[in-house]
Amino acid sequence: MHLKESIYRDQTIRLAHGNGGRLMRELIEQVFAKHLKNELLDINTDAAYLPFDVALGDIMMTTDGFTVEPLEFPGGNIGSLAVHGTVNDLAVSGAKPLYLTLNAFIEEGFEISVLDRIVASLARACVECGVKVVAGDTKILRRGQGGGVYLATTGMGQRLTKQIIGLHRIQVGDMLLLSGTAGDHGTAVLLAREQFGLMGSLKSDAASVLPITEALMEIDGLRFMRDPTRGGVATIAHEISQAVRQSVRLYEARIPYNQQTKVVCDLLGYDPLYMACEGRVLAVVAPECAEIAVLKLHALGYVDARVVGQIELGRAHAFIETELGGERILQELEDDPLPRIC
Amino acid sequence: MHLKESIYRDQTIRLAHGNGGRLMRELIEQVFAKHLKNELLDINTDAAYLPFDVALGDIMMTTDGFTVEPLEFPGGNIGSLAVHGTVNDLAVSGAKPLYLTLNAFIEEGFEISVLDRIVASLARACVECGVKVVAGDTKILRRGQGGGVYLATTGMGQRLTKQIIGLHRIQVGDMLLLSGTAGDHGTAVLLAREQFGLMGSLKSDAASVLPITEALMEIDGLRFMRDPTRGGVATIAHEISQAVRQSVRLYEARIPYNQQTKVVCDLLGYDPLYMACEGRVLAVVAPECAEIAVLKLHALGYVDARVVGQIELGRAHAFIETELGGERILQELEDDPLPRIC
Repeated sequence: MHLKESIYRDQTIRLAHGNGGRLMRELIEQVFAKHLKNELLDINTDAAYLPFDVALGDIMMTTDGFTVEPLEFPGGNIGSLAVHGTVNDLAVSGAKPLYLTLNAFIEEGFEISVLDRIVASLARACVECGVKVVAGDTKILRRGQGGGVYLATTGMGQRLTKQIIGLHRIQVGDMLLLSGTAGDHGTAVLLAREQFGLMGSLKSDAASVLPITEALMEIDGLRFMRDPTRGGVATIAHEISQAVRQSVRLYEARIPYNQQTKVVCDLLGYDPLYMACEGRVLAVVAPECAEIAVLKLHALGYVDARVVGQIELGRAHAFIETELGGERILQELEDDPLPRIC
Repeated sequence: MHLKESIYRDQTIRLAHGNGGRLMRELIEQVFAKHLKNELLDINTDAAYLPFDVALGDIMMTTDGFTVEPLEFPGGNIGSLAVHGTVNDLAVSGAKPLYLTLNAFIEEGFEISVLDRIVASLARACVECGVKVVAGDTKILRRGQGGGVYLATTGMGQRLTKQIIGLHRIQVGDMLLLSGTAGDHGTAVLLAREQFGLMGSLKSDAASVLPITEALMEIDGLRFMRDPTRGGVATIAHEISQAVRQSVRLYEARIPYNQQTKVVCDLLGYDPLYMACEGRVLAVVAPECAEIAVLKLHALGYVDARVVGQIELGRAHAFIETELGGERILQELEDDPLPRIC
């Protein structure tokens, strides 16, 4: 390829990369299609055909936007996050993710080499999760009207119909199970912001939760799963209490934490139970199945998985039993201490 | 509802409207769910179940981002545009649009009353097009890192399998048909920008093209359809010439124009053939079917529909035959004169 035909002759994104003409075609071909190519992705069509074997189950759909800052952080970047976030929403619904669409909003002046890194990482995450990008769109934002790159991914998957899960299946006595340490993603992203002047080896937990959800879906007593992203474990506990109209009790001593997450949150005055995870599952299971569920996850390498709470008869609120035996209500979040965490 | 529980107690969007807590729930419930409610949209689930009757045809998917400025323009706003744009990509693929997902990136400080108007308009366009929003996500952008509102919509539809269309079906001798006047959307959006100090009654052509594509799909000789958005009719003519590796001839005298679009483009030095349409179809049909196709569209009220060109044996380029008998090559766009037009 001659340099004059290569997008890399420019080092940064220009408005003309969004005009529908030659430069946009080069951006699509040489960055997006290069990394994401598969037999279903055709950049010359308006819509993609999606093969489904409907005998396998219900068709499910979800969507998510991504605005994380910084765009690259220990443990991932906005590209891998955009895959994991949408794959995980399908996974906790009991579905197998199959297809993604991708929207990119790129700010004028953004470095093409960084964009390339982000899309490469997105492509690797797709391979790991077994999903294909089947359609996409890019828009270029004027300088000062963006945040580098914003992404939106929409996911399609199929849900095996044999096992129905949902908030409506939760009963008093059910156990809450958390698949790993709480709050690492939000805390790692905070740490990666220079403004705090902190250093650390803490990595985001951002990852596909598909191995976890597939294992839990084999358990008959599985009632419900959710990935505790914005607002963290505390917010999901609150949501469950509101949906079930009963009490949700968490045990502080049982919540698995990464020591660094605890220290950083203490230092900055955040509660790690409200910090986003991007690779964890909070599951509700029948009490007689809780132990086997935890053991299953341990066997898969999720060594921090454990029972962290229970659904109790009582008024609709979530609370945490502290290590000293006191109780603290887990309120719904009011102010936002942490914009652009995912 | 008490004022303290209403999102309208604030007049503008705050960062806390994106935090996963109470304010975000209010934004979702009181703006998005209020307008978009339907039996498939459940704001308490991670993924939506989509009913399909697979006997009806192939499942198709497309996605598009929207950054139009100003957000409201004569003939529509970013909300209705986000529906029409994605519905139209499915329609020109020969599919019947069924479901949409919606991503909103909203800038801190944005007026909630304007957001409400945009979502209301989006909801009306959904009803008109017969599609349902089944999932959504909102992210709040810091002040100075957004453009008011950016949207992304992903669409799912079904394609009747009896009629296969695509670039590969185009043959030398085929006719190009345009369903209405060229370049009105881009020109109307330009006019709506105060910077030009121009006034006019020109309206965008933004609309669903579903009635057009459904009528054309009944014609056996239909080869290909596309909606000429970014880059306009000229860019699609160029794309066809590259895909077919033959010449595409347009006749200047036959291109239907709105008089105001012509005048404004002349004044500002733009070529209206490169200006975006958002409610037009450029179709390729077998020569023996061209007249019946035009008459069909006339009967539906698309009175400006006409044959505007032809595929010719020759080298792969698009050109326009001027009214004086000369020929002008329609180059691929280089610079972008018009960011944020759709």
